[in-house]
Parts: sequence; C-alpha cells; structure tokens
Amino acid sequence: MAQALAESRRGLGRTSPNPPVGCVIVQPNSGEVVGRGFHPRAGEPHAEVFALREAGEQARGATAYVTLEPCSHFGRTPPCADALIAAGIARVVVAARDPNPQVDGRGIERLRAAGMEVTSGVLEAEAVRQQAGFRARMEKGRPHVIYKYAMTLDGKVAAVDDAGQTEANGAVSGPEARARVMQWRDECDAIAVGVGTVLTDDPRLTTRGVPGGRDPRPVIFDRAARTPPSARALREGAVVVTLPHADASALASVGVTILPAATLEEALRGLHDLGVSTLLLEGGPTLASAFAAAGLLDEVRAFVAPKVLGAGLPPLLTPSRPMTEALGLEIYSVEVVGQDLLICGENKVQEAAGGRPSELSAL
Amino acid sequence: MAQALAESRRGLGRTSPNPPVGCVIVQPNSGEVVGRGFHPRAGEPHAEVFALREAGEQARGATAYVTLEPCSHFGRTPPCADALIAAGIARVVVAARDPNPQVDGRGIERLRAAGMEVTSGVLEAEAVRQQAGFRARMEKGRPHVIYKYAMTLDGKVAAVDDAGQTEANGAVSGPEARARVMQWRDECDAIAVGVGTVLTDDPRLTTRGVPGGRDPRPVIFDRAARTPPSARALREGAVVVTLPHADASALASVGVTILPAATLEEALRGLHDLGVSTLLLEGGPTLASAFAAAGLLDEVRAFVAPKVLGAGLPPLLTPSRPMTEALGLEIYSVEVVGQDLLICGENKVQEAAGGRPSELSAL
Repeated sequence: MAQALAESRRGLGRTSPNPPVGCVIVQPNSGEVVGRGFHPRAGEPHAEVFALREAGEQARGATAYVTLEPCSHFGRTPPCADALIAAGIARVVVAARDPNPQVDGRGIERLRAAGMEVTSGVLEAEAVRQQAGFRARMEKGRPHVIYKYAMTLDGKVAAVDDAGQTEANGAVSGPEARARVMQWRDECDAIAVGVGTVLTDDPRLTTRGVPGGRDPRPVIFDRAARTPPSARALREGAVVVTLPHADASALASVGVTILPAATLEEALRGLHDLGVSTLLLEGGPTLASAFAAAGLLDEVRAFVAPKVLGAGLPPLLTPSRPMTEALGLEIYSVEVVGQDLLICGENKVQEAAGGRPSELSAL
Repeated sequence: MAQALAESRRGLGRTSPNPPVGCVIVQPNSGEVVGRGFHPRAGEPHAEVFALREAGEQARGATAYVTLEPCSHFGRTPPCADALIAAGIARVVVAARDPNPQVDGRGIERLRAAGMEVTSGVLEAEAVRQQAGFRARMEKGRPHVIYKYAMTLDGKVAAVDDAGQTEANGAVSGPEARARVMQWRDECDAIAVGVGTVLTDDPRLTTRGVPGGRDPRPVIFDRAARTPPSARALREGAVVVTLPHADASALASVGVTILPAATLEEALRGLHDLGVSTLLLEGGPTLASAFAAAGLLDEVRAFVAPKVLGAGLPPLLTPSRPMTEALGLEIYSVEVVGQDLLICGENKVQEAAGGRPSELSAL
C-alpha cells in the first residue's frame, strides 16, 4: 500500500475535482509487482485502469492495492470495480472508503458480491490525508484549507519595526524549508494571499525548483479590488476574491476571474465551483486568522526555526479566547527539514464547533 | 560512557559548586563493569573514588570511563588522577575536559605522564550539557540560565482576557510535560519567578512526584520587596532579589536571604556566590525577557502543544529587532513528551554579542 500511496502522490495537485489515487497489482505467490498506476487528471483513466493495463494477463488471481475504494458508478469513465472483476483480480486491499455519495461502500460491496476478498483500512490515515481536498469537497462542499508558516521557537513569523510594520528582510526558515513549500505549491490546487502581500511584495506565487512541477492557481483576497492589473501573480487562472459591490472591472478586463463574496464561506464555495479542492494559505497572519476565526482552518504546517526573536508578528491574530478553547490539532508528522523542524497537524474538530462571522471586509 | 553519564545524572542538582560526574570501570577483556560511581555532593568523594572502591583489585589493568577529566589538584579531596594511577588503571576515557583553571588539561597530562592511555572527547556534547552549570560558573562566573515554557503551535504561553490579564485557567501542556518540569526542578539548583507570580499564584515551587527528588532553591525577583513573608515559596534557602535601596526588613526578619542587586548580572553573581550553578526560569515571559534582553539566556526548553490559540501571551516580550538579529539556538533534542513536543536548544553565541542594559527595576 505504501507503493500505491507513492503512485497516488504523483497525481497530487493535478486531479481536482477528482481525488489522487494510486494502484499497485501484486502476484500473490512471487510478491512481484506486475502493474502500477495513478490517476493523472480528471477525464483521464483511473489508477486501476493503468495498473490493469500494465499487468495484462498477470492480473488474473493477483492482489490489487488501491488507495481509494474503487468506484462503482459510471462517471467520465466506467466503474473500476467492474474492471477489476473483469480482469480476474482475486483480492483487493483498500486504504480508504470513497466518501462520494455515489460510491460510499458500494464499490467494496460490488467486489465482494463478485466473490472477491476485500480488506479495507490499510494505511488509511495517510490515504485520507492525501485525499483531504477531495474529502473536503465531498463532505463540506468547500476546499481543504492549509495554513503554512515558519516561526521562531518563540512563535514569531516576522519581526516588526518600530512603526509596527512587518520587516521583509531576514527569512525565518532555511532553504530546505523553502524548497518544501515549493513542493506543496506543486501539490495544492490553489494558493491564497491577501492583497497586502501583492501590493508589498508583488510575488509570482509560482512553483520553482520542483522537477515536473506545475504552478498552483493564485487566489488573491482583495475586498476592494485594489490588485494592480499588472501584478505578477495575475497569470492564467488567477482569481481575485472581492466584496460583491467592489468595482473589479479593470481586473476583469485583463481576463482575471473575479469571485464576488461577502464571507469566507462564500469565497470557498466559489473556489470549490472553480474546481479548487486544496487551498494553501501563504498570505500571513491576517489572512490565516480570518480563516481560523471562522473555523475554516483544516490543517497547519509549521516550520519552527532554531532561534528566538522577542517581540514580533505571531502566526495567528484571532481574537483572544481562553486556553481551554484553543483549537486542538492532531499532529500527524514531526520532521527535521534542514535546520528547521516541521510540525504538521490537522484540525479534527467538526466545523460546527468553530465559526465566528467571517466578513470578508477584514481582508 | 553512556553508563557513566547515567551515573553522573544521579548527582544533578546536588553537587554545586562541583560538577556532576560519573565513572564506570570496565574489564577490557570481558567487557564486564566492575565499578560504578557518581559524585553525590560537594565535600563527598568524587565519582572515580566510588568506582575504584567498588572495583577493588579488579581495577588493575581496567579501563575507566569518566564524564569529566579527573582532577589533578588537592581540593577537599586528593587528586583523582593519582587515585586512578595508584589503582593500576590502564586506560582512561574522558568525555570532557575540566574547565577549572586548576585542572584544564593537567589531569589528562598527569595520567599520560604515568604511562596511561587517555582518550578524550567521547560523548562530549552530552557531558558538557550535564555540566553546564559548573561550566558557566568556571567560564562566566554566573549560573547557567534555562528558560522553560510551554506554548501552543502558534506560539502562545497563555491566553489573555479582555482586560489584558493573563488567564490562569487552562494549562497549555499535558501531564507528562508537567512531570518533566518536576524532573528539571529536581536537577536544577534554583528556580526563579517574578514577584507577580508569587502575588498571583503563591506557588510552592517544590519538586513533586519525583522519587528521591529534592526541592530547588526558590529565587524571587522582587525589586521593591513586595513578597509577603507568608508566601509559600519562602521555605529554607529562599532568596529574594531586590533593588539595593528596597526595604526588605520584613522578609529578612523571617530568615529569608535578601540579595540586593541593581542589575541582573549582579543578581546572577550573587546567586553564584550562594552556590547556585543552574537557574531554571519559571516566571513567565516578563522575567525571561529581561534575561534574554541582557544576553543572559543560555538554554531554552520549549514544549509545543498540539493546538492553536490566536491572540495571547508569547514566550518572550523583548524589544523588537530584525529577524537577522534573532538569537540563534543549537537544538540538541526534539522529543515527544505525552501529547506535546519538547524542543531543547542552547545559546552558543558568546555573551558579549548580546547584552542590553539589564536594570532590575523592570521586574
């Protein structure tokens, strides 16, 4: 299954609105891998189909490892459960059930009804994490929102000069951490910043240094449509989220997709409709705090640098609340990345538990 | 040497002004440990003496592993180098050199002059860390200062209520982290808080739940001598640091040691003279920030809890400076402690590099 997850990873950031899926077919006696496949993008065949093609006649009697329950319905492609049955696969090992209401256990039932042995839940947590965007789409009707930041060991993402301005000079984390962020850009559908970042830094928001990498869709939260039409982030596919009454005609005239929204929830629904399943917040504390206050932060990826700063800008600025009401995270990995430590955690609290009003007007 | 370091650890917090030292004697052919010892407290024999006693005749031709260079001078006890030679030890493995100007390589020279094979620098980093208090005493003439705190993944040590007051309810870290802090209290000579903590919480500052544990010396930073004579921390050995002109007669009359000091440096020199080699800062951000601003923070032990809070109190409040001037730490351990992560790092920068004026009047 670890190999199937590695296959699946190859499709990360390319499959929306479909999930990334990997499949490996193994001869049960020799243990030999006879077929591999991953879902490369929506409209193209599913992982199982590629793996079965490669396996050919060797699929008969073999075991298929699939990171997501094989589909049971006719979508843009015929059901994979049927393909596995037709190929004579004897046993299927599934990492995670498909939350799609059109599947949701029916794929597994279909395989079992055909006399196949099916095991489910193998390396499920990792599979579910890979499919977080697809699952948020299915279960919440909105993208999976990830906040990444780099802070000092005393919790500061940036220095603040005497005028209260954030200092741009002096990176918190090392080059390996920045390379890892590029990998995430490659794997996420879209990347969000606030208009302040655009006006100050005019970033490209591209993926650099990742072999075969592709750029995420830039999303700028900009209530008053102040983004200059010449901003470097406004490449093909760029989205600017504005308040409904904002005059965004200058941006629209240069081909930018304008997404009017009164709240963050509306903005996320709009991004969902544009096919965005995973949204990486790179816009700093103000943007992330708005999502956090609205209960819309699903995952945190925090680099911790080996230094202490003193006064500075913290990762989140949301209004104060008692420590007992802090948002609990489930830490799923701790890793040394160059000189820094990377701590990743998920918000497992149901969305209903969070949620203050999330007026877009603060951004 | 790992076993010798474990022996040494048994003396942590009990040996000041001496260093903690451990010694293990091994038969070179069988690899059998024939003697173990650690220095239990100043005035009692050194680790080598206990280990040699246990080894008896088996010391002849054996290898001695010692965490600190054997002493070459007559102090309260005769030189250990001579004892090793007299016992017929063939080889000595040393973790770290003794920075004491009365030793400083002379112990090793003495052993070599007697025809012994001596290896130095084995597991040196861990030994040096164990001996940090002794080394600060020798090299800086002041205690080794450790700041411990527990913060959320967004860098907050406490919530702040609407009036800007720190909220006492709601612990940041879990019970395993708190148990670890008790272990540190047992291992440190003294524990420091500000008078604010005493007035608000009236803590006991004792070591609880550690088998054979002993209480550290409480040190209260209290410029105006506002500590009530009835404060629970004012047990035997308690020290209150005040400004020189403060009227501390009420405290002195109940037997409290008053340490007048105009600056933190003076206070640390005073604690040094009282035999304090390691000082654990538990007083929160205000106290720790004063030490950090003065360049007097030697080590950081930070628990990171799996939660994010938003607005709150950060671990350090020192005046803002550019990120490029953040204090670099050398991380020496990252460990999972219950639900929390523990990150420990040392300040390897020379003291001269830090250092703003450190008036005690801020505390």
